[in-house]
Amino acid sequence: MRNRNSCVADALLEWAGAIGPEFVVSGSAELRAAETATFQTTQRIPVILRPGTPQEACEVVRIANHHGTAVYPVSSGKNWGYGSRVPVTTDCVLLDLSRLNRITDFNERLGYITVEPGVTQQDLFNFLRERNSKLWMDATGSSPDCSLIGNAMERGFGHTPYGDHFSNICGLEVILASGEVIRTGYAGLPAAKAGPVYRWGVGPSLDGLFSQSNLGIVIGMTIWLMPAPEYFQSFFFQCDREDGLAPIVDALRPLRMDGTLRSAVHIGNDYKVLAGICQFPWEEELPLSPERMKVQRAKAKFARWSGSGALYGTRNQVAEARKLLRRALAGKTDKLQFLDDRKLSLASRFKGVYKTLSGLDLTRTLQLLRPVYGLLKGIPTRATLGSTYWRKRMAVPADPDPDRDGCGLLWTAPVAPMEGHAARTLIGMAERTLLAHGFEPQISLTLLTERSLACVISITYDREVPGEDGKAMAAYIDLQTQLEREGYYSYRLGIAGMRTLNSNPAYGQLLRDLKRALDPGNVIAPGRYIPGENIGAARA
Amino acid sequence: MRNRNSCVADALLEWAGAIGPEFVVSGSAELRAAETATFQTTQRIPVILRPGTPQEACEVVRIANHHGTAVYPVSSGKNWGYGSRVPVTTDCVLLDLSRLNRITDFNERLGYITVEPGVTQQDLFNFLRERNSKLWMDATGSSPDCSLIGNAMERGFGHTPYGDHFSNICGLEVILASGEVIRTGYAGLPAAKAGPVYRWGVGPSLDGLFSQSNLGIVIGMTIWLMPAPEYFQSFFFQCDREDGLAPIVDALRPLRMDGTLRSAVHIGNDYKVLAGICQFPWEEELPLSPERMKVQRAKAKFARWSGSGALYGTRNQVAEARKLLRRALAGKTDKLQFLDDRKLSLASRFKGVYKTLSGLDLTRTLQLLRPVYGLLKGIPTRATLGSTYWRKRMAVPADPDPDRDGCGLLWTAPVAPMEGHAARTLIGMAERTLLAHGFEPQISLTLLTERSLACVISITYDREVPGEDGKAMAAYIDLQTQLEREGYYSYRLGIAGMRTLNSNPAYGQLLRDLKRALDPGNVIAPGRYIPGENIGAARA
Repeated sequence: MRNRNSCVADALLEWAGAIGPEFVVSGSAELRAAETATFQTTQRIPVILRPGTPQEACEVVRIANHHGTAVYPVSSGKNWGYGSRVPVTTDCVLLDLSRLNRITDFNERLGYITVEPGVTQQDLFNFLRERNSKLWMDATGSSPDCSLIGNAMERGFGHTPYGDHFSNICGLEVILASGEVIRTGYAGLPAAKAGPVYRWGVGPSLDGLFSQSNLGIVIGMTIWLMPAPEYFQSFFFQCDREDGLAPIVDALRPLRMDGTLRSAVHIGNDYKVLAGICQFPWEEELPLSPERMKVQRAKAKFARWSGSGALYGTRNQVAEARKLLRRALAGKTDKLQFLDDRKLSLASRFKGVYKTLSGLDLTRTLQLLRPVYGLLKGIPTRATLGSTYWRKRMAVPADPDPDRDGCGLLWTAPVAPMEGHAARTLIGMAERTLLAHGFEPQISLTLLTERSLACVISITYDREVPGEDGKAMAAYIDLQTQLEREGYYSYRLGIAGMRTLNSNPAYGQLLRDLKRALDPGNVIAPGRYIPGENIGAARA
Repeated sequence: MRNRNSCVADALLEWAGAIGPEFVVSGSAELRAAETATFQTTQRIPVILRPGTPQEACEVVRIANHHGTAVYPVSSGKNWGYGSRVPVTTDCVLLDLSRLNRITDFNERLGYITVEPGVTQQDLFNFLRERNSKLWMDATGSSPDCSLIGNAMERGFGHTPYGDHFSNICGLEVILASGEVIRTGYAGLPAAKAGPVYRWGVGPSLDGLFSQSNLGIVIGMTIWLMPAPEYFQSFFFQCDREDGLAPIVDALRPLRMDGTLRSAVHIGNDYKVLAGICQFPWEEELPLSPERMKVQRAKAKFARWSGSGALYGTRNQVAEARKLLRRALAGKTDKLQFLDDRKLSLASRFKGVYKTLSGLDLTRTLQLLRPVYGLLKGIPTRATLGSTYWRKRMAVPADPDPDRDGCGLLWTAPVAPMEGHAARTLIGMAERTLLAHGFEPQISLTLLTERSLACVISITYDREVPGEDGKAMAAYIDLQTQLEREGYYSYRLGIAGMRTLNSNPAYGQLLRDLKRALDPGNVIAPGRYIPGENIGAARA
């Protein structure tokens, strides 16, 4: 096999011809920015390609395959905490798909939309609003500028009944390493009517093959959208008991399993909530100890555990769910409050009166609640990005960009059965480990599916403090190693954690066989989820 | 490549050594029976292998791969209407997995069970009943002796909220062509805790690859089970207007999409219902014309369209769903009735009184309703098999076996968006075509997912009538060709219809590439869903 760099040089002219020289980006400022994640990386990016159409994207891949040059596709590149735009291996050409930003199909009656990789959460939200659509999207708590395809292919999740994104998509359009395009499910069959509405198609179902993998490049996807319910009511609960988490999880499981709770419930620990409210209280010592955390909790009036979720349906359906939820949580939380549009609007209008009557200041509460309340209705928010500035000495800017501002962020997100003791074990392990390494353990726990929970654990730090990059990576590796040893594997991996899948030899071999069959030159995102050592060699 | 038959001879001794000679079946009666489907086939089966453990099954595959002999796995072999146990291509060794019938894991709290391919619907039902489990399974309307794995891998469906079987499974255990075993999702990672509860695992999700395919042999699977609801109420509706179907579909779609109807609704045409009630009325001419069908309807008191479904939840949840269902169907059906356990039990006890008061004979109604009512609660039934004897001159035996008794049955099951006009188009096309070919069009339409419907169309005939095999196959091919031309593809294929997937060249090539990567010798079920021409040649 030829040296990758000399191949890149050969391919450059062809790429420029294919997509126009102005979309072949080689300025060192742009390249250095693209090489920057929210943790330390050493990978270099020789050039960024920005095709403007699916045909151009295919041509880029065809040229790459012909020259044996690796390309690393990103949709919006907002994979913060998992590696941003930085390729898993060095010297990959960055294939930026953000210019492919068309909405190619939409059906209000059947509730679906078909998009390209450059379509962001905000784009979809605007699209629906402009049409006065009666459909709701699901949004992740990350940036409104996140790609819908990028997030679904990483199997991200949000807050509504359509929160498990990969469960609510179908009909992928995929560029293979050869540059050819295929569509999955019925969408791949001529004139098929059920392409956007039925997932499995006929014959083997290949959707899963192209999520969390490097077997193809997804340039189209249909997303199912939920009909706006007649009535929506969010709920929020607090529990200040250290051992209060497990009983809450066990109480909510039956409601998740029987369909009363149709959407994910999110529970944050105190560190998570504090990072949502403010930056590190610099009068305190690093890391903020559990004892000092208690003082912060008392000061800002929140509990050890804070939960949020919502009920969707007719007024009667919601009323019944509310009754069942109250009954299930009775005695297990300190506070359980319900909030709907009317109450929210009243509260906003009568903050002063409310304060006079109740002694409580709603202004601040509303400021905190609104983004979460919106997410429960599928409204993307920029507010959550502020927490990545937790340990920064600068204020959160109006246009937060963690990569640019040296925000340190490493995420791992283990999945467990939805059982109280598993939640307790996971969070205990994460809190102990991160505190021992000198970081505040910011954790949110999501009751993701009917039977499983995911725990999103973040290590948040300031990359500009010397030594912190190394310390954070050591903490990350220590934590992930411990979690995996106990059988708690992340639902998704950062570029620094792609080794996990090697652990079973026969399975690893199967993945390599698939890679060799679909991408014998190992040109698509080498090392991403599928171990790719020496695949290219077979071709040399 | 060597001649398959001589390879079989070489392999036989090794297989006998591996699984015991008594489980190498070569008696001509057994082989002829296994070569018999519910339609004409010419494929020959040289020998049947019946391994008793997963290890033996692996060894069988390893030997087959070594000798280049093709094996065709069946779980229970009850794939009636789609090919029973008959391989797609001739001279395959039949790999009968029915002796692998262990339940290897069960969790009442999290609602799942892990089974081997020999575990049938009835086995699971008995298992749950013996434990007084509070969990319900989902059952297809086929035989209680159907394999759970076989049905789920063909992506079959039933009647409860867990009716889309392939959407409610995870953690496959698969024998690859090499004889090695892998597990999908988290189940493949050491000590993983979330294997049976979270579907996608980490990295590419491979479940879909092993459904409707010949890329591996599934010998283990976890099935999710639903918690028994506090209250269950079935509903039945009738509509006698010829054009009544489309408005019903359009009225039910919003309830399916917003989660009020959590399970599939099934709607049968009159031919379907009549075949459930009795055999062909031999005083009539073949085929029974729509005009004569009207006479039958009047006589047996049922309508052009008959629907069934159920509501699951607390009493209040069901009451609200009932209200919404009534409102949606108002003016669109002639009759909408609700039935729960109490009413059913009362009706059974007071049939005489009821008849006196209402003039209606409940006995017969109950006889017809009970199996459907049971299926809505996930109780397998043998009653539906009777309809395969529709055109037989013999009475339905106590132990129905369509293969043995020369029952002709060909199924095709196109999927469409859940829209009234699509339902009307599909059913119109099927009714016209089958009547023109001389067969009664027995059709049931299932509101399968939130956005799609599947139409199960059966061609039912008597194989012992000379010429009928050929006529039925011609009708089947004509119908399937028309449906596919209009973009309505079957969700599943019979062994006579496996050509569909060839229609897109790049996609077909991808499937062949996958097959070559995972099964270079083409030893697993050649031609099944994945076109396999000359794959073996690459190895010769």
